Amino acid sequence: MTAYIIQNENALFYECGFSCDNALFLRFNAHEAYFLTDGRYITEAKENIKNAEIIDAKRDLIKKARDIIKKARLKSVVFDPLEFSVARFGALSKNLSVNFIPKKNFSQIKRAVKTREEIELIESAALIGQKSFEHFAAFLREHGVGKSEKELHYEAQSFMRCGGKNKLSFSPICAVNENAAKPHSSPSEKRLKTGDLLLLDAGVKYCRYCSDRTRTMEINERAEFDDKKRQKFKDLFRQKIYDTVLKAQEAAIKTVKIGVKASDIDKAARDVIEKAGYGKYFIHSTGHGVGLDIHELPVISSKSRAVIEEGMVFTIEPGIYLPNEFGVRIEDMAAIIDGKVKILHENG
Amino acid sequence: MTAYIIQNENALFYECGFSCDNALFLRFNAHEAYFLTDGRYITEAKENIKNAEIIDAKRDLIKKARDIIKKARLKSVVFDPLEFSVARFGALSKNLSVNFIPKKNFSQIKRAVKTREEIELIESAALIGQKSFEHFAAFLREHGVGKSEKELHYEAQSFMRCGGKNKLSFSPICAVNENAAKPHSSPSEKRLKTGDLLLLDAGVKYCRYCSDRTRTMEINERAEFDDKKRQKFKDLFRQKIYDTVLKAQEAAIKTVKIGVKASDIDKAARDVIEKAGYGKYFIHSTGHGVGLDIHELPVISSKSRAVIEEGMVFTIEPGIYLPNEFGVRIEDMAAIIDGKVKILHENG
Repeated sequence: MTAYIIQNENALFYECGFSCDNALFLRFNAHEAYFLTDGRYITEAKENIKNAEIIDAKRDLIKKARDIIKKARLKSVVFDPLEFSVARFGALSKNLSVNFIPKKNFSQIKRAVKTREEIELIESAALIGQKSFEHFAAFLREHGVGKSEKELHYEAQSFMRCGGKNKLSFSPICAVNENAAKPHSSPSEKRLKTGDLLLLDAGVKYCRYCSDRTRTMEINERAEFDDKKRQKFKDLFRQKIYDTVLKAQEAAIKTVKIGVKASDIDKAARDVIEKAGYGKYFIHSTGHGVGLDIHELPVISSKSRAVIEEGMVFTIEPGIYLPNEFGVRIEDMAAIIDGKVKILHENG
Repeated sequence: MTAYIIQNENALFYECGFSCDNALFLRFNAHEAYFLTDGRYITEAKENIKNAEIIDAKRDLIKKARDIIKKARLKSVVFDPLEFSVARFGALSKNLSVNFIPKKNFSQIKRAVKTREEIELIESAALIGQKSFEHFAAFLREHGVGKSEKELHYEAQSFMRCGGKNKLSFSPICAVNENAAKPHSSPSEKRLKTGDLLLLDAGVKYCRYCSDRTRTMEINERAEFDDKKRQKFKDLFRQKIYDTVLKAQEAAIKTVKIGVKASDIDKAARDVIEKAGYGKYFIHSTGHGVGLDIHELPVISSKSRAVIEEGMVFTIEPGIYLPNEFGVRIEDMAAIIDGKVKILHENG
């Protein structure tokens, strides 16, 4: 193997089961690895890391890393050029007679295929996320009408975080009507009314592994983020768009198996939406890997060169976004376990 | 002026009053500037930006930036090597006959001196933060005892966010007894008891400008984050440590004026703590600038070369951290207005 250096927190955690916001990880071979940090984190690092030597590099981790690389007389060190800033990489490599090999997404490529244990953690996160969606739906039925989008966004966070028990995978998207047509909308002061369309995209972490899910529904006294995704809309046009997105998602899920191209999964969803005449309103890719990062490999898009393998976990999330009207997205995570696709987390 | 390119969100906002998570800003001279983003953000960008041409660069901002730089036949472009990754800067600069000049903290250096309007926004954030501290203290008096540190951390966030009205400057630190001795502690399952020491370090944003404040107090039925900082502790040793930190903060604040070295402000605080015999337990610098970023210039430390100027805003936050026992930190923001130091936000 070629030696490598890592600094991203999730990449650090993947290597040694611990991370902090000031650390470098160096692995030279199967037996030799170093975790460099400063005095603030040494105690916790020693408690948690078993597969690397822990070094207190004081405040200058880069200097210490250079010393170690020099002493080991390494010829080559792999690094991720997306991870290191120009300034930091400059300080690391300056006047060192070492060949630094840039490998984009070096850690994420390793992490695209998950172990059974990792999938179980993601599944736990998905289950917690699903329950939080249900609790938020109950809140919406009773107290949602009259709340501003900003308040709803805050409440969505509170339900996902569940009194501080969970960390969020990302800041949730809770968007109403025309705001749901913007994939990156900011919550407004507009207040929720009965009959409005609401889109919720949210996830939580379990032992640092992320979940990700989106549901779209109509606000009324029976509103729920139905796990079977059989949402009813009074407005027939909304119902048509919703049913099209659901059909697209189902078509994509049906395509998933080992050996299939990620681009073919994207195509399956896109074909349904294009056939219905809304192709130009499906303005993003069909999905992305999920793990320690909320966006990982494989990318499920028309341009992706990924091929589905055992142990991959990724979202399937087609959508239709009609500017100034409304948007619909339905998102679940799929995992490849024992050669079969499993939707995380689906009841029954 | 030399042309420059920027990508950091707060730096973007400072240049043109708008930012999003996929944008580049180029300024060539006083009259020529470009804001590059993709279709998702074009509408909002056009609504908000008056001092730059807005360009839909589709998904490839770097390619578009290269085209614009080439067309303008620029000789030099300043960039911040801390802001750009090796991969992104490589893509931007490859085979371009332009001299890219690295300037570390390029935007933060510009932003170290604030306008009167900016200081007013920071002061508003400080006032909201202060009120939130008061509400959290009322909660602690009534409901605090028995709550775990994790629950307290969550509640502190809720009080600071105030039903979704405010964004946080950073994830608050809410630490009890020996956990307060770790400047970067994670909240534990330990439950709060009467007589415990509690440290709260938190801030909110107002129109994107941050506040930052720390108080340390003893939990009892009269507990409050006294704005005058006259905290009472039953334990005489805790009281002694607290009084020393407060004396250090007061000494530092007294030193602040235009023309004084930041290192002398640090020294004023450090001298008090060293004289009391706890120098080695004051393990960080005395303060940092605050603005759009929670950590800005000037740095108030022994090594800082900054000199205090009109319009600077920075924290003064000495602390003493006794491992496995407890820690005390007291933090306020100081602003230099009309040549005088003003503490943000101090009652009366």
